[in-house]
Amino acid sequence: MRTFVIVGHKATTSPNFSLEDIPGTSGRLDILCRSVTAAFVLSHGIRKDVCVYLVLLGGEAAKTIQLKGETLRHLNPDERTTAALLKKALAVPATPQWAMSTSGIFVRLGGLPELLADLKDARLIYLREDGANIGGQAFRELDGELAFILGDHTGMTTEEEGLIEGAGAQVVSLGTTSLHADHCIVVLNWLLDANIFKA
Amino acid sequence: MRTFVIVGHKATTSPNFSLEDIPGTSGRLDILCRSVTAAFVLSHGIRKDVCVYLVLLGGEAAKTIQLKGETLRHLNPDERTTAALLKKALAVPATPQWAMSTSGIFVRLGGLPELLADLKDARLIYLREDGANIGGQAFRELDGELAFILGDHTGMTTEEEGLIEGAGAQVVSLGTTSLHADHCIVVLNWLLDANIFKA
Repeated sequence: MRTFVIVGHKATTSPNFSLEDIPGTSGRLDILCRSVTAAFVLSHGIRKDVCVYLVLLGGEAAKTIQLKGETLRHLNPDERTTAALLKKALAVPATPQWAMSTSGIFVRLGGLPELLADLKDARLIYLREDGANIGGQAFRELDGELAFILGDHTGMTTEEEGLIEGAGAQVVSLGTTSLHADHCIVVLNWLLDANIFKA
Repeated sequence: MRTFVIVGHKATTSPNFSLEDIPGTSGRLDILCRSVTAAFVLSHGIRKDVCVYLVLLGGEAAKTIQLKGETLRHLNPDERTTAALLKKALAVPATPQWAMSTSGIFVRLGGLPELLADLKDARLIYLREDGANIGGQAFRELDGELAFILGDHTGMTTEEEGLIEGAGAQVVSLGTTSLHADHCIVVLNWLLDANIFKA
């Protein structure tokens, strides 16, 4: 199983954003939409072994959306239909327990601390430009339950970094060129597909 | 210089498509929009050393749109604003000579044969799932003027493959998992950034 966690620091927790101007009205939910398609979409299908968590911090109370490849339906490769699926999820009344929106999409109240507690059995890998190079020896044996944690355009706060490192995450870099979160996910999926770490 | 050529077999040559339903009204121009952002967009800027050609075959006469990183302006990472830029380019009266639309974006009549003639000095690399594995020895010395040729969701026709191979292209694969064109471009940019071929 591959898990991707993307933290949207300004991403709205409300369904009241416009599909005609996603970047301008949703706190850059467009970044999270592209991260979802990067994580799941193949030429002819959906990756079943992927799980995505979107941590939305741009509202009064944090919300988290979970997308599970195994049961995910209605996901198309374009940005707008992904945004429409997230809009539906944000319209579901959220409590601290997961509630289903459409097939394979769930929502709850809560942010990074709650999610890190849920992921305590996964091997956490936090992507940051100054981390250890992903090609290094330490990552040649990546296996098991991997959970990659990525920030959005604003980067993580010191408090969030404290939580992530306190949860035991390794800090890893994909290189010196600064990439968008969705592009990082594409590269990670490709590296894991190719088993390049085990070469 | 890195050049990416993406062939859109049903992609419209007319500006009369809807930004509210790009996949359904433009012959899947959404695939080409995502390929453009995959080719150019970094976390904080645009790749200056990239050139993209979109070959649009979904009209009466083929058109090609060129985007040059060096002078490209107004490109945002989201799909809709990219589609709006292409819409503007398609509204420019096209002739066999390049005409500028917005900064860094040009359009002309013509398709793959004309473009391959223009690229005769580049090292052509045609991405196909059953090609030689990109990790192999032959690609460890990739350098100079590289032009990668990618298809859309329909794949290339036999006639197009004949043209491409006749132009001297190497046939290369990114692996056995079938990826969308934009995801292939993300991986190629990352591989070239990382100089992994020269390791």
